[in-house]
Amino acid sequence: MKLTYRREEDLKLRNMSLVSLTTDFGDLYPAAMKAVILGINPEVQIVDVTHSIRQAEIREGAFALYSLVPYFPPKTVHVGIVDPGVGTSRRALAIKAGKTGQEQYFVGPDNGLLIPAARRLGEMEIYKITNRDFMLKSGISATFHGRDIFAPVGAHLSGGLEIEKVGPKISDFVDLDFGNFGIDGPFLIGEVIFADSFGNVITNIPEDVILKFSAFGSQVEVNGRQAPFVQTYGFAGQEEPLILIGSHGFLEIAVNGGNAALKFGLKNGDRVAIKII
Amino acid sequence: MKLTYRREEDLKLRNMSLVSLTTDFGDLYPAAMKAVILGINPEVQIVDVTHSIRQAEIREGAFALYSLVPYFPPKTVHVGIVDPGVGTSRRALAIKAGKTGQEQYFVGPDNGLLIPAARRLGEMEIYKITNRDFMLKSGISATFHGRDIFAPVGAHLSGGLEIEKVGPKISDFVDLDFGNFGIDGPFLIGEVIFADSFGNVITNIPEDVILKFSAFGSQVEVNGRQAPFVQTYGFAGQEEPLILIGSHGFLEIAVNGGNAALKFGLKNGDRVAIKII
Amino acid sequence: MKLTYRREEDLKLRNMSLVSLTTDFGDLYPAAMKAVILGINPEVQIVDVTHSIRQAEIREGAFALYSLVPYFPPKTVHVGIVDPGVGTSRRALAIKAGKTGQEQYFVGPDNGLLIPAARRLGEMEIYKITNRDFMLKSGISATFHGRDIFAPVGAHLSGGLEIEKVGPKISDFVDLDFGNFGIDGPFLIGEVIFADSFGNVITNIPEDVILKFSAFGSQVEVNGRQAPFVQTYGFAGQEEPLILIGSHGFLEIAVNGGNAALKFGLKNGDRVAIKII
Repeated sequence: MKLTYRREEDLKLRNMSLVSLTTDFGDLYPAAMKAVILGINPEVQIVDVTHSIRQAEIREGAFALYSLVPYFPPKTVHVGIVDPGVGTSRRALAIKAGKTGQEQYFVGPDNGLLIPAARRLGEMEIYKITNRDFMLKSGISATFHGRDIFAPVGAHLSGGLEIEKVGPKISDFVDLDFGNFGIDGPFLIGEVIFADSFGNVITNIPEDVILKFSAFGSQVEVNGRQAPFVQTYGFAGQEEPLILIGSHGFLEIAVNGGNAALKFGLKNGDRVAIKII
Repeated sequence: MKLTYRREEDLKLRNMSLVSLTTDFGDLYPAAMKAVILGINPEVQIVDVTHSIRQAEIREGAFALYSLVPYFPPKTVHVGIVDPGVGTSRRALAIKAGKTGQEQYFVGPDNGLLIPAARRLGEMEIYKITNRDFMLKSGISATFHGRDIFAPVGAHLSGGLEIEKVGPKISDFVDLDFGNFGIDGPFLIGEVIFADSFGNVITNIPEDVILKFSAFGSQVEVNGRQAPFVQTYGFAGQEEPLILIGSHGFLEIAVNGGNAALKFGLKNGDRVAIKII
Repeated sequence: MKLTYRREEDLKLRNMSLVSLTTDFGDLYPAAMKAVILGINPEVQIVDVTHSIRQAEIREGAFALYSLVPYFPPKTVHVGIVDPGVGTSRRALAIKAGKTGQEQYFVGPDNGLLIPAARRLGEMEIYKITNRDFMLKSGISATFHGRDIFAPVGAHLSGGLEIEKVGPKISDFVDLDFGNFGIDGPFLIGEVIFADSFGNVITNIPEDVILKFSAFGSQVEVNGRQAPFVQTYGFAGQEEPLILIGSHGFLEIAVNGGNAALKFGLKNGDRVAIKII
């Protein structure tokens, strides 16, 4: 989707690159990462995916990154840091994923955080970051590898560094998936993988599986509570529960104008059982 | 206000454009919009106006955009999304507003959200977005037109797309204003249009109307409670209420170092009556 | 740390500049500052350090800026605004600090906020902002100098304006420091200067002083409560307190996976006494 209505020569001198940040750092710490990134690559675009992942909730961070990765352009470098093992022996990774010409890059700890997003793009090449040339020159702290290792390596990748330069290629890595789902007798079974800031509960059940099980307009029971399966929030009454295919492409439990996580008492990892009634 | 002290040739190759975002999306979802925008126009500047509009509070979002629009440079594209009707039959709009050479653009749902801001700039041309060439290529979801329609159309406009290309010009649209205000006997009457994150209560009473009614230094009663009318917070005692002309250009009720919304029990839409004492 | 793997000619047309923002403005108001900055210097990079400084807590804002300034590249312009005296007679300052070729700039109120950060870089030149040519053309409000004075002056400095042009050089200014610390008999004494969004308590005791007093692995008492002195969070048990040298370079009191500010009942300005046991 290019700007075809614009003179091509307007664009040919530019080559803006893109770094995304996904962390559990809250306030203040992300700015240190941005300072480091812009000191290395002054013209990069930085997008905050979120800094509000609950502390040390790797699976939640993995889902945030996974859900957004299809919308980013090729060459994007995703720096993801939910890193309870910082300063211990856990490895630091850089990953190249996707078809030639469509690759995106990932930088972060070896704890599974980056894997679902990278795998979603196709083939992965995984490297262990060992080359100190691409880390912060002023020293590596024991508690903030986001600033001292991941931000500078991400900035260098965004500037065109060949990923092979960061360290040796590896084939073992800590994996992570979003759990099991499927149809079990009269039930469609899955798991909660994320609750967003509005209390919408996102499950691990993909669009195609729910559409095989049920059709828009049917009435279902979600963990024993009645709700319609509809296309969008506006098709349920105010404060009424509903299920829909969310914008992430997964079955989502919502309350129109309300908080489904509270109403259903559901949190990350909880089981969801849906039955047509 | 140009950088006259800088060699002009330094700037002539650049043509950075600007997209602002005003939504009730909270965390995570704005990043999907930014990914889409930067995939289309990699060199655009993106400014978050706010993503904390209370859910579905169209009037609150309209005020946020209205209050900021005079400070943005010409050509800015404002993407505004507070959209309880997403996925239903409500129309999608693109608006060009302001004098030739000074135009700003607006993209969002046809529910009044964009109108006060656009009208503040002068003449408006309003278009209904129908051309799928400028929407997300991978498909339009029923729940996230911010990502699938408004972000890509905004990105294309920021890159120089002629607004006529998005769809037909229309003259009917959903209007919105900030309610009535005026002098009624001994009272200056108005309505709350916004409470900011500090609890400052912003009314719909403009600067010129309050200055006709009263003068700096006078003592007034606000909904029966005494307060001075002063130039700035520091002219009231700690924890003391005051009224002032806020930075938005409207009469504002504040508490120096405190929360006026709580102290006065005021929220969006509430009536305010002021009397000189 | 330059991008040596990239053709130099790719970069020579670019000269992106950097403005950081540190305020107690919360939501919405920072966007007005960004609109003004980008209207003046359309190609600048803007980094939000934080907008969540507690209202009027100058010392907290000073620490945020102080802790981040070593990570920003030369020429960065830091706009810092925690300004309870806005609209009164307090002066507006612009500061150049650091060695020739490595300078960073600071813009904000004369209340001490900018001083620790500027002084950390070395020599300071301090100017009183009086030249209205570099303020907002549409007028100066009494309550929002962030938008009307500090943002435009910062934008002009980021675009290459000589700092001497903003107004006269001064030598008196409001100073601020982070309080006393040191070894007193069996105790290492200091003060809390910041509690971050996770409840980690940062003191004013620098790395070298704590390392003179104790060694990693020792057990200490912090305000009467036992904790190990370790390199990183992961070296304490879940929910267990610890002390460490934080990423800011100061002694920090933390709880692994918990909130030390709550557990120790500590807030900004409180005294901390540490004893080896």
